[in-house]
Amino acid sequence: MKALWLEHQRLSIRDIPKPAPAPGEALVRVLFAGICNTDLELMRGYYPFAGVPGHEFVGEVDGERVVGEINAACSECADRKHCEHRTVLGIKNRNGAFAEFLTLPKENLHVVPKSISTEHAVFVEPLAAALEIQEQIAIGAEARVLVVGNGKLGTLVARTIPGIVTLAGRDTVVAEKSFDIVVECSGNPAGFEIARRAVRPRGTIVMKSTYAGDLTLNMSSIVVDEITLVGSRCGPFEKAIDLLARGGVKVADMIEATYPLDKATEAFGRAQRRGAMKVLVQCRQ
Amino acid sequence: MKALWLEHQRLSIRDIPKPAPAPGEALVRVLFAGICNTDLELMRGYYPFAGVPGHEFVGEVDGERVVGEINAACSECADRKHCEHRTVLGIKNRNGAFAEFLTLPKENLHVVPKSISTEHAVFVEPLAAALEIQEQIAIGAEARVLVVGNGKLGTLVARTIPGIVTLAGRDTVVAEKSFDIVVECSGNPAGFEIARRAVRPRGTIVMKSTYAGDLTLNMSSIVVDEITLVGSRCGPFEKAIDLLARGGVKVADMIEATYPLDKATEAFGRAQRRGAMKVLVQCRQ
Repeated sequence: MKALWLEHQRLSIRDIPKPAPAPGEALVRVLFAGICNTDLELMRGYYPFAGVPGHEFVGEVDGERVVGEINAACSECADRKHCEHRTVLGIKNRNGAFAEFLTLPKENLHVVPKSISTEHAVFVEPLAAALEIQEQIAIGAEARVLVVGNGKLGTLVARTIPGIVTLAGRDTVVAEKSFDIVVECSGNPAGFEIARRAVRPRGTIVMKSTYAGDLTLNMSSIVVDEITLVGSRCGPFEKAIDLLARGGVKVADMIEATYPLDKATEAFGRAQRRGAMKVLVQCRQ
Repeated sequence: MKALWLEHQRLSIRDIPKPAPAPGEALVRVLFAGICNTDLELMRGYYPFAGVPGHEFVGEVDGERVVGEINAACSECADRKHCEHRTVLGIKNRNGAFAEFLTLPKENLHVVPKSISTEHAVFVEPLAAALEIQEQIAIGAEARVLVVGNGKLGTLVARTIPGIVTLAGRDTVVAEKSFDIVVECSGNPAGFEIARRAVRPRGTIVMKSTYAGDLTLNMSSIVVDEITLVGSRCGPFEKAIDLLARGGVKVADMIEATYPLDKATEAFGRAQRRGAMKVLVQCRQ
């Protein structure tokens, strides 16, 4: 089958063997896959992954459209998402979605309801990640919330989060110590600094992005101001599907471009442009 | 009056004017004051404070024994502890307790009940700081809790926290990813590393100590493991007084030594010894 292959920080289109599902796994024909910032970081070599990247997708199994949770745990683990031996689709020890086919445990798959268009279903995974915030902390309708990073993830977060939401880009001037909750979606230390300055004493910073390398911070000021930092990753697929199905969040305007699988390297080029929103790869030819 | 004076990282006993209480403030005759790690850090120059250090004390006003909350806010602030213009007893823009007298707003003072001995009342402030943890997070009886740092604060925290508590020193070998909650009381990066390794995915690290300089950490792993970091400072005096009054926490064995005020520099020397517990200074001659 055709697949996008990442190795030594280089992307190429290759012909690789069609994957054989292990017991309990499904073979998924990929329809569309989306490029996430994590994919761009993989490309920059921040994680030691070689293989097929891609973890946001919509595919087809037995004529039904499906999306899939990306963490595949060992058989003994109750907490799939945090199993120490997990594989992660297109990120860790498991080939991902920029290919004609992928495999995932059947239990990871969710059927896509008719009311969600195929392209929009690619947003289920990042939308679930955005909704994870509300699984972790309570956000009242009166909460003053700042979202730092006006890219793909930040925009989804801003569109789903309750409260009085401000979305800040790189150059937005933000009032100091004024926000009850700040969601850091930029994934860079400058974004963290904006978050740190914007949060009020006793406030919460949700860390929604991974960082290249270590982050250095003034922990004493976190202690003195009694700030809470919450690491936040993948989230509830059911809720994301439900929200999309009932039109509770707009995603149509977030699709920047769609490329066929054999132009996937160009798709990555497009996704790396500053300010780029979601770039899709159509994997079924 | 006699006072311990800190300037350019040097301590000396000086004769300084007896403080004059501002409107709304009380003049407190200090009976005992305790040496906290923050005092040792002030001495090492980590904060730009010059004046009388000391913020753990028991004193006397109009024949009554009192303890006092250390944050003095401006008149407009509802949140005394986090007022941006606050002064902090013996830490920031306000002379502290290693002296014959100190001043504090009357509203900061709490009467010490008869059942608490005068020396033990010095523990109200650090005990309140330990109890602050439970103001911020819920800790079930079944929670596996690790306290990192077996000094003064760590010991108080371990004695007050519910759950199944393990107290770890510098060389304790701790099982990885095994604790629901880790309370970091060591105030050094090595202690933070122990905490980080010991906490389970989705667990909480409570940051109870300030750090010299910045702390560098792998924030991506905090995100991936969905760890919560909670900064925690001063706490509820009422609850600390109540706990001491009903004998709910043992502190008698935590007093390392008591020195008279004119030997306060020696008291600091004693407090700096590795493994030292609470050193008291008797301020009334």
